[in-house]
Order: sequence, then C-alpha cells, then structure tokens
Amino acid sequence: LKSPFAKLSPIPKENVQFNEGFWQGRLAKNKAAMSKLLAALREHGVLDNFKHVKDPGVERRGPRFTDSDLYKWLEGACYALPDPILQPQIEEVCSLIVDAQGEDGYLNTYFSHNRAAERFADLEHGHELYCAGHLIEAAIAHRRATGKEELFQAAIRFADYLVSQFGPGKIEKACGHPEIELALVKLYKETGEEKYLKLARFFLERLDFRGQQEILGHAVRATYYASGLADLYLETGETDFLAAVQRLWQNMVEEKIYLTGGLGGRVRSESVGRPFELPLEGAYAETCAAIGNLFWNSRMLAISAEGKYTDLLERTLYNGFLAGVSLSGDKYFYENPLAYNGKPYQEPWHSNENRDLYERKLWHGCTCCPPNVQRLLASLGNYFYSASPEGLWIHLYDNSELKWQIDGVPVHLVQTGNYPWDRKLNIQLKLPKQHEFSLFLRLPGWAKNYTLLLDGMEHQAKMRDGYLEIRNRWQDNKVELNLELPVVLMEANPRACETRCSVALMRGPLVYCLEQADNPKIPILDTKLNLAEALTLDATDTLGGIMKIQGFGKIPQEPFGPLYRPLGSKNQQLAPVNLTFIPYYAWNNRGTGAMTVWLQKG
Amino acid sequence: LKSPFAKLSPIPKENVQFNEGFWQGRLAKNKAAMSKLLAALREHGVLDNFKHVKDPGVERRGPRFTDSDLYKWLEGACYALPDPILQPQIEEVCSLIVDAQGEDGYLNTYFSHNRAAERFADLEHGHELYCAGHLIEAAIAHRRATGKEELFQAAIRFADYLVSQFGPGKIEKACGHPEIELALVKLYKETGEEKYLKLARFFLERLDFRGQQEILGHAVRATYYASGLADLYLETGETDFLAAVQRLWQNMVEEKIYLTGGLGGRVRSESVGRPFELPLEGAYAETCAAIGNLFWNSRMLAISAEGKYTDLLERTLYNGFLAGVSLSGDKYFYENPLAYNGKPYQEPWHSNENRDLYERKLWHGCTCCPPNVQRLLASLGNYFYSASPEGLWIHLYDNSELKWQIDGVPVHLVQTGNYPWDRKLNIQLKLPKQHEFSLFLRLPGWAKNYTLLLDGMEHQAKMRDGYLEIRNRWQDNKVELNLELPVVLMEANPRACETRCSVALMRGPLVYCLEQADNPKIPILDTKLNLAEALTLDATDTLGGIMKIQGFGKIPQEPFGPLYRPLGSKNQQLAPVNLTFIPYYAWNNRGTGAMTVWLQKG
Repeated sequence: LKSPFAKLSPIPKENVQFNEGFWQGRLAKNKAAMSKLLAALREHGVLDNFKHVKDPGVERRGPRFTDSDLYKWLEGACYALPDPILQPQIEEVCSLIVDAQGEDGYLNTYFSHNRAAERFADLEHGHELYCAGHLIEAAIAHRRATGKEELFQAAIRFADYLVSQFGPGKIEKACGHPEIELALVKLYKETGEEKYLKLARFFLERLDFRGQQEILGHAVRATYYASGLADLYLETGETDFLAAVQRLWQNMVEEKIYLTGGLGGRVRSESVGRPFELPLEGAYAETCAAIGNLFWNSRMLAISAEGKYTDLLERTLYNGFLAGVSLSGDKYFYENPLAYNGKPYQEPWHSNENRDLYERKLWHGCTCCPPNVQRLLASLGNYFYSASPEGLWIHLYDNSELKWQIDGVPVHLVQTGNYPWDRKLNIQLKLPKQHEFSLFLRLPGWAKNYTLLLDGMEHQAKMRDGYLEIRNRWQDNKVELNLELPVVLMEANPRACETRCSVALMRGPLVYCLEQADNPKIPILDTKLNLAEALTLDATDTLGGIMKIQGFGKIPQEPFGPLYRPLGSKNQQLAPVNLTFIPYYAWNNRGTGAMTVWLQKG
Repeated sequence: LKSPFAKLSPIPKENVQFNEGFWQGRLAKNKAAMSKLLAALREHGVLDNFKHVKDPGVERRGPRFTDSDLYKWLEGACYALPDPILQPQIEEVCSLIVDAQGEDGYLNTYFSHNRAAERFADLEHGHELYCAGHLIEAAIAHRRATGKEELFQAAIRFADYLVSQFGPGKIEKACGHPEIELALVKLYKETGEEKYLKLARFFLERLDFRGQQEILGHAVRATYYASGLADLYLETGETDFLAAVQRLWQNMVEEKIYLTGGLGGRVRSESVGRPFELPLEGAYAETCAAIGNLFWNSRMLAISAEGKYTDLLERTLYNGFLAGVSLSGDKYFYENPLAYNGKPYQEPWHSNENRDLYERKLWHGCTCCPPNVQRLLASLGNYFYSASPEGLWIHLYDNSELKWQIDGVPVHLVQTGNYPWDRKLNIQLKLPKQHEFSLFLRLPGWAKNYTLLLDGMEHQAKMRDGYLEIRNRWQDNKVELNLELPVVLMEANPRACETRCSVALMRGPLVYCLEQADNPKIPILDTKLNLAEALTLDATDTLGGIMKIQGFGKIPQEPFGPLYRPLGSKNQQLAPVNLTFIPYYAWNNRGTGAMTVWLQKG
C-alpha cells in the first residue's frame, strides 16, 4: 500500500495493540458508543432513507447529506471489528445500502423519486459525490475487515458509473465538498485501476486552487482538498501538487490555525476566514476540520518524513480533535471554542441562533462530526508507526505494542511509559535474530531537551527532521527516551489581535485551559496569569486521570466601567487568586461553564 | 410637540440654519445625492413595485422590504425641502404610493396578488409593519413640509386598518423588525389620537424584553426597540419602560458598543452578539444601527437632559454614522469595520461570501442604509438645540444660527468656531429686549478642562449633568467656550480581547485611524504606536479639510514565523516609522486599502 512518492509506508492498525494508557480506554468507549450512534441514526430516519429509495412509502428525512453519516459510521464500525455486537449491525447496514443501489450504480437517498431529475444538477451544494466518497471508503474498510465483497462491488459499480459520467467531454464539474477524491485514490490503491486516480485528478483540477496562496473557505472542505492534493503527489510525484499543498500548509501554520490545531473560526460559512481571523469565544473550529487536519498532516508526513507535520498532527489530536468527544466517549462537540463565558446566547429576533450553549451531545441536527470522530478513533492505530527502507518510525507515543516484519524478520516493539503525563518513555525491541535497521523516534518539537539511552548507555542519535535515528543491530534492546516536559507559556503573533498580551499553557502536546468548575468563584475571562509565580503540577486524579496545573492569577476587584476610557485612567484593583488548569480536551465534562485557553499576562 | 415626560423639548430643524463649517457642505451634498438615489431605486424597480400592486403586468422586484427604502427616501427628501428638483420627485412618489393603497388601507407591494393571502402571516420576517411604519413617518414629514394632506390621510387609513387588525383579541403579534412603534408614537403626537399610542404600546409589549438585562440581537432592531421603549416612557411616564431602557443603555456602553458608536459586530444575523463580542476586522457595525443609536440617544437626552447621552450621540454621529457615507456624499457603507487588511476575501466554496471588499457605493442589494443616511443628515438640525422651562440647550456645535422664542421673546443665537477642529467656540445671543433664562452649553465628556467667558469675563457656570448652565439676563451677549482639545489615547476594557494592549487616537469627538493611503509602505495591522513620542497635529488641507495627526510607530522587520511560539523567544526586530492618522469617518475615500483604528502599544 505504499505510495510511490511516499518516504514512509503505512503500518496498519492491525499490527498495533494499545495497552492500558492514554488511548486504550478511549478506544473502548468509542467502540461502545458506536451502537448508540447507530440507534440515533436509526431514530432520525437515516437508515430508513435507504428503504425510501425503493419504497417511496417510507419517508426520507434529514439534510441531503445524511447518507454520508451512515457511511462514516459503517467505516468506523468496520475499523472496530471484530466485535459481536457491531458485526450484525454492520451487515444490516450493508444490506440496506446494497439493496438501495440503482441499476446504473448510482445511489443517493436524497436524489431519488421526485428529485431524481436533479441528479448532478447542483454539485456545488448537493453533496452527492461527497456521499459517494464516503460509501467507497466504507466499502473498502468493510472488505478489508470482513473479506466480504458485496458492498465493495457496489462501491465499484458506483465508482464506475462516476467514471462514465464525469471527465473531459462529460460532466466537467466537481463536488462542492471534496471527499470523493480521497476515496477514489484509496480505491485506485485498492484495485490498481488507473481510471479512479484519473477521475480523482480530474475532480481536483476542477477545484483548481493550485495558484492559491492561502488556505481559504470552509475548513473541512479546505483540509479534505489539501489531503487530496497530497494524495495526488503521493501517487504521481508531480511537484506542482506538492508545491501547492506545502504552500497551503505553511500559510495555515503562519496565519490560520488555532493553538489547539482547530481550524476555521468563522461561524457563517464554517470557514477559515481572513488571515488571523481567530475569534476565541464563538470560534467554530469544527471537530471535522480537526479530523481533516489529521488526514492532511499524516499525508504530509508520509511525503516528507518531517517531524513538523507530526507535531501539528499530535497537537491537533490531543486538543482540537479530542475536545470534540466527551470523556464518556459518546457525546460530541461540533464547535470547539477557545473561550466561553458560560452563558447561552439567545438572539431575540433569530430564534434559530442559539449556538453558544456549549454542551456535547450524541446527536446533532447536522451530525457529520460524531461518526467522523468514531472512525478516526477506531483507526488511530494507523497513525503511530511507519516503515521506510531504512527502518521503523515511531510518530506517536502511548503504551502499545507493534508486531511487524523488517526484511522478513519479525519485530516485536513494546512502548511503555505514561505519555503524555510523564517524561520517560521505554521502548523495548525483540527480534528472533539480530537485524540491522534504524529506529526513528520522534523528538517532539516541544521537547527542547532530552536524554536518550540505548540499553542503559547514553546514545548519540542523528537528528533527522524531528526524528532521532538510532542505527543499531537489534535483537533484544531497550531504548529510554527522556523528554523535557515543563509547563510552557505560549504566545501568539500579535497580528492575531484576540491573543495579544496573552499566554496559553502547554505541557507536552497538551494545551491547557482554565475552567469554571475548578475555579468556581473566578471571573474566568477577566483573569490574568501572574507570570512571576511558579506553575506546578497536580496529579490529583480527576477527569479520567489527568495532570492538572496550579498557578496564581489576578482578578479585578471592581467593574471596569464604560468599555472605553483615556489611557492612564485609574487602574482596576486586582486581587490574587489561585488558579487550576486542566487539559483543554477535558473541558465541559462537568456541566457547562466558563472556560479560556488564553489569559492576559498579569 | 413636547412629550409630557421629557425634560427637554425639541427645537425643530426649521429654526436652525447651518453656516459654512463642518456640516453645511455635507448637507448640501446629501441633498444632491437624493435624486441619484431615487434614480437607483427607480432602476431597481422599487417605484415600479407600487405600480405592480394594481397592474400585475409590472413585475415586482427586490427584497420584500423595498417599500421602506422608498419611504425613507421620501421622508429624507421632505426634510430637504424646499427644493425645485426634489419637489416634483416627491409628488411623483406620493402619487405612486397613494394609487397603490388598497380599499382597506393596507399597502405592501410584496404581499399582493399571489402573496395577498400571506398578509400578516409571517410577521417575524415579513417586514410588513416595518414598511408601514416608514410610510407613516414619511407621510408625517410630507405634511409638515408641504401642508398637503393626501399622503398623510393614506397613512392614517393604513394606521386605522392596523388598529382594526392588531390588539388584544385580534392579531396578537408584533413585527419582527421594530419601527411601526416609533411611527405610531409620532402619529399619536401628530394627531392626539390615543389609539395609535395604545397600538404602539401593544406591539412593544408583544416584543416584551422588559426583563432583559442586556442588549441583544439584530443591532438595528435592538436600537429601534429601545427607542420605542423610550418613546413610551416619554408619553406615559411609566417607570418600567424607563428602567428597562436605562438598563439596556448601560449594558450597551459597558459591554457591547464600538469606540466609534457602531453597534453589532456579528455578521451572521447582523447582531450585537455576546458581551464583548467586538471583532475589529469584519465588524458589521451597520450604518443603520449607528442611526438607530442616534435615535435612541436623542430620546434618552430628551428624557434626562444628561450629557452622557449627548456624548454618545456625538461620538456615533462623527464616527460610526459618518463613516457610512463618502466625502462625496453619494456613496454608502453598509458595514463599518474598525480594521481592514485591504484585501478582498473570497470564499472558494461560497461564491456569495465576498463581504470583505470594502468600498462605498450608491446601491446595495439590501439598500436600507443609503436612504436612512439621507433622512438622518437631512434632519440633522433637529439634534442641535432643545428647550426647557429653564431656557435653551446647545447639544452639538457647528457654525449655525438658531431663531427661536423664549416666553414669547425672539432669540437669535449664532455659533461660530471651527468645531470639531478648533478649541474655541463663540456663541452670540441677540434679543430685542432683555430676558432672563439659562443657556445650557454642553461640556463634552472628552473635554477635561475648559474656560468660559461671558462678554469677555470669566464665568463660573453651574455644572448640570454635562451641561454648563449660564443663568443671565440676555440681550446682546457673547459667550466664549474654550475646550481642551488634545489628542487622547483611548484604551478598552481588557475583557474585549481584540483591543488588549492597544490604543486608539481620539481628538474631541473624532476617532482617528491609520490608513494605507497616508502610510503607503507600512504593514498597517502590524504597526505599533510608540507611546514615548509626541503626537502632533497637521492641518494640511486634504480630504475636505481635516486635521491629521502625526505620530511615530514601530513595524516588524521580519516575519513572525509560525503563529505560536514559547513566550520569551527572540523578539521580532522593529523599525521606527512615521505615522499619519486621519479621522475614521474619512477612511476609504482614496480607494480601498488597509486601515486600523486600534494599534498595539509599542
């Protein structure tokens, strides 16, 4: 499955086993939430919509893109197999899908019956090819997990129908929401059929933003589009695609991304917005956009083997993405603000404008994020390791085991530690016979100092773009990596006006926040951080075993008065307070209340 | 026309004459722009829409509320009479309106023919009563300006029809966009008919936000609603209304308003948003909301005779409102951002999202602001003076003359000076015989020091809520008021995160800004103001005779790099630059380019 222009080859999750640690419990809860989400999809008519195609007596319900929600659920459930509960649910869903497919291969529950004539008429808004893409991805996952062909063949029929309908001299348009491109590349890799790659390329070129200097528009579309560009480079090696996607990435990290890895601050149009348009309260930062960012960065990593992409991938994973799901694993955020005043905002003249009551829930009117979270978590093992001709790469850390072969020699690798809480990581390798290769350990960008021991001896590893290369003849060896893991105060480019003169706390990959629940009497959004005082760790076990941070702050003792006043007016009196910070991902798990990631320097 | 619970009685603009100064030329240009706007309304079908009502062969065009645009134009044109060009245009428009009215008194060009059955069916969004309100206001203005009864009687018929349809036991709903309430109170004052006041009260109580603690929602609706509450207090003296509107005002000035007096930062829903939701780039701050704020504050002033309302009225007039119209007087902003990077922003997946190209224009797809600006400017004389039993009040300053009577004694008052540019104001009073009364001169909140001379002698005036009371036996006297008029650096409550560690320049009532046109090679949004250096005035005559401000700043010499970094990283090198500031109202009159009101302290 290695792409010809990738430096790194994927190591699929089937080779990775999570042991007790940061992720194992989360993945178990995620699996348990899948049946709940399926029940909610059923309750809201998403399954019945497929019956509707052949039986107009069954009503079609929900937004036009609901098919994709079920496809994403299916893909996630397949990643979670084997599982005795999910197995029959998966087969029921597959049957529904296969039964609903048209003779010509087309399938979309919205564009049927009285809307059948509208097929492909409004590609910009219709989400038809977007849905098709998610069907193809689900079908590939299903075949890989079960070996069954029926759904996969249905996806092939649909893909072949698209090949017959789209292209030069045929319909010369692409879907308004990229996704089909990723699916077609995957199908090309699955089948070796060039026609799918060609169609993916055709669609991406219709969207043609290759002259584009900045990442723009709907954040999920933008990240899926960028992922598609990266896929095209990986398969074709054409440097135009690479240059375009590198430029977009650079622009993103210089002007457009939240500290959490969230993307897209603009609520209207769910989009990235202007340079430095990064509102904190009311930030959209859709969970699906964080997922898109994970897709994109994992592809950039495969292309380049550069740690800067892993750094952003990890930061997004632990913050902008992980905040999207509750600690219980079955409730989801659609929007991920970086500050909240704790109060709902009701627009008196727009009764549907009531976005600002932040509470995770299982079901959303537009329910794209929950199944996307499920499929990402269920496939998390894919993101931990890679292979290259030189050896084995470790990108992410957690207590886990890898079984793999290098040059035909079995390798058993065991990671232990308490990442991301503790600084010490142990990696044990066992091989049946001695074999020489490089082990590439990611040295996170946030780790300014480290020590590295090989079998208890200090080791001088070569730095390669954020990875420590340990060349060795391996058989039964222990590697110990000690990462400096202090609390770090982060600042932003002052051009981002919302974060001027403010700091955010990070420790390792985790962004921290100040939440009302831990600081019950403090005006969270008015609180300054006292930089002269130390920040200390607090391992009191709450919120599923987190490390809190204790610090000191200052809060105003009196109202400011009118919003504006001449500079040099009497300063507000400030009073010292103790502050407790928790990881951003853990906020909003004890009811809804005020929260902030950024604090004024005080 | 004094309201029973007003402390101040209006002095209508007919008694006020502007001489050469700040406003005279603007009002002349405004009058000249009226025919242009009428031509544009005609071109876009707004006049034909009235023909459509009786002749379905004529197409109805534009949004559902276009009738109100013509009514507002008409009201403004009537305020500008006498005028030989406008006179026949006004009569043509009046005929169109009167001819279109139904037998029952109802008139709305949108809800006619195949939409006739929808009359009053969607009050929340239909704007039907909003349009009716603007018809009534236009009709009152027309009768006052011309003495003609026909349009006024049409408005009465419509109002009587509304009285017959709405109220307890009838339709028990109000219009989603307040306006009819203001019109009905005006009609009550014009006719003495209690039924109109009663209906206004009924509508306002349907909207009932009297328990509301903060100003919320669509900014224009919110200010019109608050103006209606104030009107009800002025006519009924019921303190519930007063307490509610005072609470909303206090909340606005503490949490919700821009330094410019603009209101409503949220583009989606055109609304005020959460507390301290005050984005700078992309701020909506609709021109109509500034106008609503003028309406509201002028009512609060009439209620209380307190200068804090005049201060906000003046700040809104010279900044948030005046920026809405070009120096040429015939181009209008709908949105009034406080910062702009100078580049249009095109959303690739939402082709209708292209708001960020800021250029004033005569015609807008939703053209509510242009005629609202015209009627406000054409009635500006109403806002300068008031009367009370104690005497005469001067609220705003400009070269102008007032002819009025106090206790039957004619008073001729002449203001001279060069406000708002110069600090010295001369006020001359002439009466045919000696008469004792108080002259109340507003001492603007921004003037921390002043000197006051009466006939050349220093005078100790009593301070009354922002007004200097000069009690005197007047006959032929000169008052000289010298206002301290330095450049003042303003800061905001740090809870408003966009303006943290930043300052804005004001001088007198004027908010200043830094625009690319005066600072061609400077990265406007990255510029810091060097607080250690002096700010100086520059009276070079540009942009219609403004006073510029010169200062010193610092700009980064190298890119910041990634958006986020650990605090204490190497600082950006800064280079000194000269800065030139212009009044905010004058921005965007030399092409479109970057601009900011707030600058980081440096």
